[in-house]
Amino acid sequence: MAKEFVNEITDMHTDFAQWYTDVVLKTEMVDYGPVKGTMVIRPYGYAVWENIQHYFDNEFKKVGVQNAYFPMFIPESFLKREAEHVEGFAPEVAVVTYAGGQDLAEKLIVRPTSETIICEMFAKWVKSYRDLPLKINQWCNVVRWEKTTRPFLRTSEFLWQEGHTAQASMQDAENDAQTMLKIYEKGLRELLAIPTITGQKTENEKFAGAVNTYSLEAVMKDGKCLQSGTTHNMGQNFAKASDIKFLNKDEKLEYAYSSSWGVSTRLIGALVMVHGDERGMRMPPNVAPIQVVIIPIASKAAGVIEKCNEVAEILTNNGFRVKVDNSNNTPGWKFNEYEMKGVPLRLEIGPRDIENDVATAVRRDTHEKTQLNLKNIENEVKAMLNSIQNNMFNQAAETLKNAIVETDDFSTLVNEVNNGKVALAYHCGNSKCETEIKDKTTIKTRVIQSLDDKHKCIYCGKKSKYRVYFGKQY
Amino acid sequence: MAKEFVNEITDMHTDFAQWYTDVVLKTEMVDYGPVKGTMVIRPYGYAVWENIQHYFDNEFKKVGVQNAYFPMFIPESFLKREAEHVEGFAPEVAVVTYAGGQDLAEKLIVRPTSETIICEMFAKWVKSYRDLPLKINQWCNVVRWEKTTRPFLRTSEFLWQEGHTAQASMQDAENDAQTMLKIYEKGLRELLAIPTITGQKTENEKFAGAVNTYSLEAVMKDGKCLQSGTTHNMGQNFAKASDIKFLNKDEKLEYAYSSSWGVSTRLIGALVMVHGDERGMRMPPNVAPIQVVIIPIASKAAGVIEKCNEVAEILTNNGFRVKVDNSNNTPGWKFNEYEMKGVPLRLEIGPRDIENDVATAVRRDTHEKTQLNLKNIENEVKAMLNSIQNNMFNQAAETLKNAIVETDDFSTLVNEVNNGKVALAYHCGNSKCETEIKDKTTIKTRVIQSLDDKHKCIYCGKKSKYRVYFGKQY
Repeated sequence: MAKEFVNEITDMHTDFAQWYTDVVLKTEMVDYGPVKGTMVIRPYGYAVWENIQHYFDNEFKKVGVQNAYFPMFIPESFLKREAEHVEGFAPEVAVVTYAGGQDLAEKLIVRPTSETIICEMFAKWVKSYRDLPLKINQWCNVVRWEKTTRPFLRTSEFLWQEGHTAQASMQDAENDAQTMLKIYEKGLRELLAIPTITGQKTENEKFAGAVNTYSLEAVMKDGKCLQSGTTHNMGQNFAKASDIKFLNKDEKLEYAYSSSWGVSTRLIGALVMVHGDERGMRMPPNVAPIQVVIIPIASKAAGVIEKCNEVAEILTNNGFRVKVDNSNNTPGWKFNEYEMKGVPLRLEIGPRDIENDVATAVRRDTHEKTQLNLKNIENEVKAMLNSIQNNMFNQAAETLKNAIVETDDFSTLVNEVNNGKVALAYHCGNSKCETEIKDKTTIKTRVIQSLDDKHKCIYCGKKSKYRVYFGKQY
Repeated sequence: MAKEFVNEITDMHTDFAQWYTDVVLKTEMVDYGPVKGTMVIRPYGYAVWENIQHYFDNEFKKVGVQNAYFPMFIPESFLKREAEHVEGFAPEVAVVTYAGGQDLAEKLIVRPTSETIICEMFAKWVKSYRDLPLKINQWCNVVRWEKTTRPFLRTSEFLWQEGHTAQASMQDAENDAQTMLKIYEKGLRELLAIPTITGQKTENEKFAGAVNTYSLEAVMKDGKCLQSGTTHNMGQNFAKASDIKFLNKDEKLEYAYSSSWGVSTRLIGALVMVHGDERGMRMPPNVAPIQVVIIPIASKAAGVIEKCNEVAEILTNNGFRVKVDNSNNTPGWKFNEYEMKGVPLRLEIGPRDIENDVATAVRRDTHEKTQLNLKNIENEVKAMLNSIQNNMFNQAAETLKNAIVETDDFSTLVNEVNNGKVALAYHCGNSKCETEIKDKTTIKTRVIQSLDDKHKCIYCGKKSKYRVYFGKQY
């Protein structure tokens, strides 16, 4: 009983939101959880997350970060310690009021982020400048109760890593925020083939309690921005709220300086909306759960399955992630299925291929069909996967470039952004001016491109402070 | 300003419980969280957990298990679906009643385990025998609100992996439970150097909702047992409660058969109580965060630090986990510090060692001092770490062997168990008889050693059903 392939993916140009939902569900990356707003990350989606974890975990460790784990329940009073922080998170927290058979004396917040509890522990561990720097990361779940949710992009529970450092000077905390930003940018580029607009957030848009916030903004195929990673220099704000003091080299007590930085399962959403197409998902080889799928042609012919398995073994031994599909579905069904799932490279092997000692290769990115020599298959595959990875990055970079419009005219800015563009414009840096733009148009600043006081603000006409990207967002 | 070493670890023979607490806190494996009953897993403890994760994750994947992630919040109604399950977990759950600014219509349970929510999703995904087996694992946090808590052993939140499979027959679910038990047993032996008493639980002691439960019982240095991993054949119990039905090969609808299995951060507690000694922790090399610590002697002498770093680089490049401590503390302080932390091998390198092209090596397990040839240091270290790993397993196996007492007399059983032994005795298998023993003595059965109907029950004198281990437990 062969399965019949039905491509029920909505056309992306007709309804991008529905296209996205179709892709993430039908590729079996995700499913809806039983509680509204939650998601189940299925094996095909979780394998992407594992590859992301593996990459960044290595990079963090290279710069001296150590992993740890902090409790998920935060006493309600902790969240209130830092004024901006409580304001930022209070509306969306989930609260445990009852446990072990009785009402709790103090309510417990399920972490929306762990600044407060980690800083509480830092205060206990840090006594002297010799205890610094402290560089800690944790991989965990966090909860933010959102009204409108979408798998990977915004769910009440999601997975992330949150790094937190304590340093002896403002400059060191600032360096951490900038170093981690570079690691994220490199990871998005090398692993996920996603180019980003990277820079500092405005005062209005920075993290609740931070001195400086930096962000990586990826631009989706519909022109909306997705904040794909952020890093924050907290200055002494959290150290003061949590009383993290250290004896400095001059033997004086001083508040520490902290940073925090994170990326989440949101990146999987970015991956889909940057690389997906009308046939479904396209996985960049470096992050793909399956890099090569091998489909036997005329699989009952002598030696076909054996040859497929032999090639799979060679590739697996060379470190590639490979699957042979020898189910009884038709080759046509399989072609569609793995294209939809976004497997970067398909090898077809049938009697004629075996005769010629080749595999027929089809790239997911260009649909180009070539023949690869089986004698040298590991190198041929390596070269092709590299080429696919590079091509996918270049395609995404081209899309990003085309999405950006420079303008000095506010109504042009509004029109362009509403038509799926990101606008680059001068702004006065005044918070009220920025808020007025947002309230009127729902358009927000993304990140600052460069400081500039030689031009006029696109909205109020006063002297510019910087040039900044404006866009819509997920 | 060199630190002064103070070994404040309580004598393990005087107060084993306090010794344990001292070791886990002073090695900086763990700290108390701000909410009573919670723990912070610090980098030195978390690195142990990462090594455990890495080992088992590989083993699971070899037998076709895939990782996924399920939401942590379970609708209250789900937990009530399986009668024994709700009874088992209801008293210790934490409950979210308020989220996103309002009271919830249905309360949410923070997962104490995920059987119910995973089975809910399995019911959605499984339609036909072709969808089986389904083998899913997740690494996550779980919450069980305990009255008495101790770091790693029993805390309100802990980390674990929980694997769940759905199969087309009872035998296949049973095989999963037994296969995973073997994987756990092998991991405890090879990685943690912990020998276990492994077998089936009695009806009284099995998991809430299971048909069969298997357990690995490790015996601590105080003679108490620690349940270090369990696997369960659920039969059709959860499939019926969650309506997981599939069309079998005869095209008839049938309930699926499920299994589940898990190990947790408890294993770190076992590691401490099996291997620790009066000086602190002893880490088996295969799981040690630092396998080799290199201490410079007369570190200001020419070439000493350079030689230490050179040796560290060679060892690191050969895959060992190495630390050079060139802080300004005295060598004596460092010796004590890393012995307390349980680093398996210490290399001391000073001017005289360099002259002779050797490092002075001190093993943590035997305190034996030898000289290792620097020309061949990677092989010398490899051999020594292997020897330490084997010796630590053999020591633990000897302790386990000596802890077991065979007896046919009930008062001897009680005395021996109260004096830190595990008793092996015949039992009738009657649930009431077993409960009476427990209520009277707090002694419980651990696992069944073998079926046996040729003897008399040690308590009631009726015909025996099996020979079973009795012990106290953590």
